[in-house]
Amino acid sequence: MVQYKLNYFNLRGRAELIRLIFAAAGQQYEDVRFEREQWPEYKPKSPLGQAPYLEVIENGKTFQLAQSLTIARYLARKFDLAGKGPEEQSEAEMYADQVLDLLNEMVKIHFEKDETRKAELSKKYFGETIQNTLKVFESKITKNGSGYFVASGLTWADIFLADFLGWLGDKKDALITPFPAVKALVDKVLNHPKISEWIAKRPKTEM
Amino acid sequence: MVQYKLNYFNLRGRAELIRLIFAAAGQQYEDVRFEREQWPEYKPKSPLGQAPYLEVIENGKTFQLAQSLTIARYLARKFDLAGKGPEEQSEAEMYADQVLDLLNEMVKIHFEKDETRKAELSKKYFGETIQNTLKVFESKITKNGSGYFVASGLTWADIFLADFLGWLGDKKDALITPFPAVKALVDKVLNHPKISEWIAKRPKTEM
Ligand SMILES: N[C@@H](CCC(=O)N[C@@H](CS)C(=O)NCC(=O)O)C(=O)O
Ligand SMILES: N[C@@H](CCC(=O)N[C@@H](CS)C(=O)NCC(=O)O)C(=O)O
Repeated sequence: MVQYKLNYFNLRGRAELIRLIFAAAGQQYEDVRFEREQWPEYKPKSPLGQAPYLEVIENGKTFQLAQSLTIARYLARKFDLAGKGPEEQSEAEMYADQVLDLLNEMVKIHFEKDETRKAELSKKYFGETIQNTLKVFESKITKNGSGYFVASGLTWADIFLADFLGWLGDKKDALITPFPAVKALVDKVLNHPKISEWIAKRPKTEM
Repeated sequence: MVQYKLNYFNLRGRAELIRLIFAAAGQQYEDVRFEREQWPEYKPKSPLGQAPYLEVIENGKTFQLAQSLTIARYLARKFDLAGKGPEEQSEAEMYADQVLDLLNEMVKIHFEKDETRKAELSKKYFGETIQNTLKVFESKITKNGSGYFVASGLTWADIFLADFLGWLGDKKDALITPFPAVKALVDKVLNHPKISEWIAKRPKTEM
């Protein structure tokens, strides 16, 4: 039997994609959550001194992994949420990397302390960057005919898009309404029985 | 026969990792390079409207991929530069993602227009961030005994580290000298016969 232990702060943040993959796969795991004050105790145990990190315990051996997208790819491949064959798997990874670029830009804006600059960055981000990306996604999703990023159906890239759009809070609806294929994809992910079950029961945290 | 066509600006930039993987694998490909003024002609052809992007032509069909690290992972798996088995492949990906975090931070500093802030960011980056990461790398490389990031030997993550450290220019030597295992890894990559051959003959560009 394989045991999984995910370690992260008590936040959705960069670990929620991983939790959603576990949920979609119906895979049991230990969802270890620590407070900021406890981090110094965990940091030395993490492969790169960062969170999230995953421990995989099998036959008495522990395998550790860090970097949220690397963990997500590893689990998605294991749980058949990565796409079919090397080409499709790479396509899904490409979309996930694109979502990550959006997410990293959002984190940058979130931590910007200069209010003028924050306003400038936000204006471009919420008025242009997100739309440009969603426009490309809309055309890809429409073209492949499955209603998901790749032709064979649901992958972790779809889950990541749905998760990321949740970060946009009350800006989300207005941003995705012009993109019906994106909206339909996100609705499907959020209504996935196992995913919606997790979202309903997950700890309520600030981010 | 499979044909590869890599499309990017006439720069090393975010495409050089991919070119180095082609070089290490001894794989022929078309190294398409365009000038900034030509970009509007290429942009609509790229899967995500960004460069680099790869075209793979096989049996009259073209498969396209964007996102530099997705392209690198795809090719590394094809050319046996990805590590052995899912665990090691994920470990290599984890290190590559960590190098990418360093590279993205460097790009951010490069494009910072406020000189005061640029100086502050540089101070932290070159005085702390890089060292912290290299320290973790040093201990991992030493521990696994192969002299590379993963136990089975050379992967694309090693190539990426060597490529990224080249971005540091004349700051590189002082930064890596305190980390002999990192330095030895980088030297091995740069002295790899096919990689050094490519580096000697590649177009000389500003970045
Ligand atoms: N690119 C990394 C980023 C990891 C990261 O920055 N983690 C933060 C929390 S979201 C962290 O560990 N901070 C504490 C520290 O670095 O000591 C990933 O996606 O996993
Ligand atoms: N994360 C992406 C970044 C791609 C990116 O930002 N590409 C730039 C050049 S380095 C680009 O295409 N700029 C022109 C544009 O966006 O129109 C990757 O690694 O491929």
